[in-house]
Amino acid sequence: MGECIFCKIIRGEISGKKVYEDDYTCVIMDIANDVDGHMLAMPKKHINSILDCDGESLAHLMNTVKLVSKNCIETCGFDGVNLLNASGESAGQSVSHFHIHIIPRTTGDEIDAWPAFKGAKNNIDDMYTKLKLD
Amino acid sequence: MGECIFCKIIRGEISGKKVYEDDYTCVIMDIANDVDGHMLAMPKKHINSILDCDGESLAHLMNTVKLVSKNCIETCGFDGVNLLNASGESAGQSVSHFHIHIIPRTTGDEIDAWPAFKGAKNNIDDMYTKLKLD
Repeated sequence: MGECIFCKIIRGEISGKKVYEDDYTCVIMDIANDVDGHMLAMPKKHINSILDCDGESLAHLMNTVKLVSKNCIETCGFDGVNLLNASGESAGQSVSHFHIHIIPRTTGDEIDAWPAFKGAKNNIDDMYTKLKLD
Repeated sequence: MGECIFCKIIRGEISGKKVYEDDYTCVIMDIANDVDGHMLAMPKKHINSILDCDGESLAHLMNTVKLVSKNCIETCGFDGVNLLNASGESAGQSVSHFHIHIIPRTTGDEIDAWPAFKGAKNNIDDMYTKLKLD
């Protein structure tokens, strides 16, 4: 995975602001500068998205997401977090190394972390029939 | 947890469109009608958010999120998913029963699932210093 920018940051070949790191996972600051405290939690192993993530790596990643989220609240003065993930190009995934965005929140911070969805085009019962697992 | 609406749906006391269910987790259609295929994955046990979710429940939930996401792509004709979570009232959590939104995506679906963040107010290095775990 020589060309993956996140792999390079994990290996230290490119500098990154590492908020947290353990044997399996890493959390870095997102440099987009779009919202205060924007972080990215990722597995150290190169995994494209949740779709090809093994159960063990997924458990490690989510434990790290929880740890960093709790730290935001218990240590850093926030009182909530938003978690965001895009899996697949169609979903807006820009780097094909599985990552979960963590956005720390405070009451009254005037951040709107919910997308501006424009309404469903299809009937919910039709979608339900399509999506339901047997 | 008599008054939790998700607990009532899980127990069958209120009707819900259950996309998937196992011993530990449940996925229902979100009735907001804001975007096609909007689903909510949740633990059956009443847990407020990721902040108070034990590791085992978190692993079960994420395995279900992965299973339903893969089904969207392998069976239902989608090619990506967005995952969204709000933990805490300040983050916009409306029902205090841990849930992860799953939005199935297709190339060219014209859905924008990324929030319209208005830019960071604080210096990223100051935020990094604040958020970094020792």
